[in-house]
Amino acid sequence: MKIYFAGSIRGGRDDKEAYKYIIEQLKQYGTVLTEHIGSDSLMASAGQVEFSDQSIYRQDTDWVRESDIVIAEVTQASLGVGYELGFAESLKKPIVCLFNTESGKSLSAMVRGNDYIETIDYQNIAQIPEILKSIFKDLA
Amino acid sequence: MKIYFAGSIRGGRDDKEAYKYIIEQLKQYGTVLTEHIGSDSLMASAGQVEFSDQSIYRQDTDWVRESDIVIAEVTQASLGVGYELGFAESLKKPIVCLFNTESGKSLSAMVRGNDYIETIDYQNIAQIPEILKSIFKDLA
Repeated sequence: MKIYFAGSIRGGRDDKEAYKYIIEQLKQYGTVLTEHIGSDSLMASAGQVEFSDQSIYRQDTDWVRESDIVIAEVTQASLGVGYELGFAESLKKPIVCLFNTESGKSLSAMVRGNDYIETIDYQNIAQIPEILKSIFKDLA
Repeated sequence: MKIYFAGSIRGGRDDKEAYKYIIEQLKQYGTVLTEHIGSDSLMASAGQVEFSDQSIYRQDTDWVRESDIVIAEVTQASLGVGYELGFAESLKKPIVCLFNTESGKSLSAMVRGNDYIETIDYQNIAQIPEILKSIFKDLA
């Protein structure tokens, strides 16, 4: 099982601890192609400076193509995550979005109102293990 | 010429004056399907409360399908705008993104590194009329 995990990089790194935790949990279910999304050294201001934008684009779209499922943490608004969702949907990849309803933020209607995407709300990061268990049980 | 203009709604309304200005300029070149994006009454917290998320999703994706070109202001990170770019690309719509390099923000590699999308940087909203003129001259 190859998992593409999507989280905000240049859109803002406020939720990086959540990303890190979700990635650690996801490793129980398969290979996380995008493990760097949880990295401490990936900062919004200097994110991925060692690679060109073209090479990041190619790598990420290749990973989406290669993936069996896309799981996105969508609480922090992100242009890149949104693009990846639209791209993954065009490839008919299964997509699950996780949204923290305690964030005070509002999730885009392009995700919330999109029947193709499964959106799961959570209030606390401690709920993530059970949520992931239910996602992968449904896939098995 | 039907123009789909994309800008952030729930991701944040900081740039709504820029959206409004761009939409006014775009009207010289065709019908702007998404004129509400520049509206003062569309607030991030209460944006589009009169419609269900499903109906917003259906309307916006229908408008992308119907459009001849997608023009997005991408300075404010937005999940919905990102999704619309991925969706529009899958339909092979021409896409132009406008990014304000004076914002202190960093544009996603999924846009900046994507050869399908034309990204035009600007420093001042006063440059927009000339930029739009060049876009539509290339299309004519």
